[in-house]
Amino acid sequence: MRARAPASSANLGPGFDALAVALECYVQVEVEPAAALTVHAEGEGAGQFADAEHLAVRVARKVVGHDRLAVTVRSHIPVSRGLGSSAALAVAAAAAAGADDPFSVAAAMDGHPENAAASVFGGLVAATMANGRALAAPLPLSAALSFVVIVPERSLSTAKAREILPQTVSRSDATFNLGRMGLLLAGLADPNFLMADAMADRIHQAARTALFPEAPALLDALVSSGALASCWSGAGPSLLGITTDDAAESVRGGAEAALKKSRVAGHVLVLHADRRGLVYGDDAELPAS
Amino acid sequence: MRARAPASSANLGPGFDALAVALECYVQVEVEPAAALTVHAEGEGAGQFADAEHLAVRVARKVVGHDRLAVTVRSHIPVSRGLGSSAALAVAAAAAAGADDPFSVAAAMDGHPENAAASVFGGLVAATMANGRALAAPLPLSAALSFVVIVPERSLSTAKAREILPQTVSRSDATFNLGRMGLLLAGLADPNFLMADAMADRIHQAARTALFPEAPALLDALVSSGALASCWSGAGPSLLGITTDDAAESVRGGAEAALKKSRVAGHVLVLHADRRGLVYGDDAELPAS
Repeated sequence: MRARAPASSANLGPGFDALAVALECYVQVEVEPAAALTVHAEGEGAGQFADAEHLAVRVARKVVGHDRLAVTVRSHIPVSRGLGSSAALAVAAAAAAGADDPFSVAAAMDGHPENAAASVFGGLVAATMANGRALAAPLPLSAALSFVVIVPERSLSTAKAREILPQTVSRSDATFNLGRMGLLLAGLADPNFLMADAMADRIHQAARTALFPEAPALLDALVSSGALASCWSGAGPSLLGITTDDAAESVRGGAEAALKKSRVAGHVLVLHADRRGLVYGDDAELPAS
Repeated sequence: MRARAPASSANLGPGFDALAVALECYVQVEVEPAAALTVHAEGEGAGQFADAEHLAVRVARKVVGHDRLAVTVRSHIPVSRGLGSSAALAVAAAAAAGADDPFSVAAAMDGHPENAAASVFGGLVAATMANGRALAAPLPLSAALSFVVIVPERSLSTAKAREILPQTVSRSDATFNLGRMGLLLAGLADPNFLMADAMADRIHQAARTALFPEAPALLDALVSSGALASCWSGAGPSLLGITTDDAAESVRGGAEAALKKSRVAGHVLVLHADRRGLVYGDDAELPAS
């Protein structure tokens, strides 16, 4: 079977471990019965993993109970950049292997269901674990928004980006994030209300700046070149500017200039939100990248 | 001038200091020039305050710069029950006194802008202070929801309800609330996704239970009699069940039975969300209560 899942950007500033948005950049996985395990990988991530440890194989093996499988992975999603490549791959592999509930399978693989929820359902999602169960629900998302993504040429491990976070926060910082997340969701539903202040966060972004000191200047550049708001994408290092469609090219230009100025190697993508999430069979074609 | 503002329910479970919803229960204020201060109060709160210290007078005095005013207050909003009566009164008084920005005036009176935002804008709102400025924005709210409010015959001071809260929280509790708030806003936008788990909170409700030990049983009764979710209203002691319209009477019955069983004096209201917020002049009639 063949399946396709979109990349995603989790956290979105104040919405740490709570929100994610699916983006029009995809991974496709095919899983077929075979005499013995074969893995063929193309595109992003190809050649990085031994066959038996490839995430797509681990997921497919878990779903079908053995690994007498021919697994093909074709990916446009940069790996270890905060764009949900692992979750998208796990979702597509679970689906291609025939899982009844690819969301639960993928969420169980890393315990953080936001990226998996976006990759399965598309659009903007809320997701969390509750009593050991992954829960997710769709949130209103305006069709008039573009996502300008700065993708640095460096990887940042999610585990390391999580280790650096403090174990306790003040009540006022906790409520700070709740207040900003409310404003953010109002602004994502209706961009007339989207303001840069809505992306402020006191739980993760400041601590993670130690791992990527150029991030604040790049986040500022996204807003000063026309984005309504900007934030880290997942655990980074990718950074996200959210903009109305008409300002997207200006924001792209500002982001490229800021990358050059900061001497951070990388590139800039302009993406829309993916609205379809996980798709199967003939729908699961990869668009030209 | 005459103005009317709705009651509101703030916090809404995980959305501590971040969310509020306006409810169809109102206070009306008239402010007219006079030779000296006169205050006439009817309904809820009447007779509880000396004229010069009445919140409506303090707000009107701040707006016009003196108190040679005839102030009339007619209220249906129970006082000190967690239904935003102070914020609604401040909003209506600021508006009736001619304030350009009643939201900022009312938010400045108590530093917590959620109730004031709901009373000004109506519907479901996100609100927070940012750099000393009160910010608010509307959030999507389904038209198919009713709010069943248990109003105990006891008052609970917001200041005391705040003192009892811990000053720090674990990062996992902070993210717990962010995750549930995302699910809650998904469910308020589309009740098909509203689930009781979305109201879980680890910042304020458990600590406040010491001030109102019967609350957990009443909250459970709201859900077991058909509400999709239940929570404290503001700092309490009122409790809120959110339900589809068709289940509202069943939830009311369950709430009344639970009040009786818990031996807490009080009554139960079934309200819709107010969608108009602050209104002036001929629009500012009080409906029959």
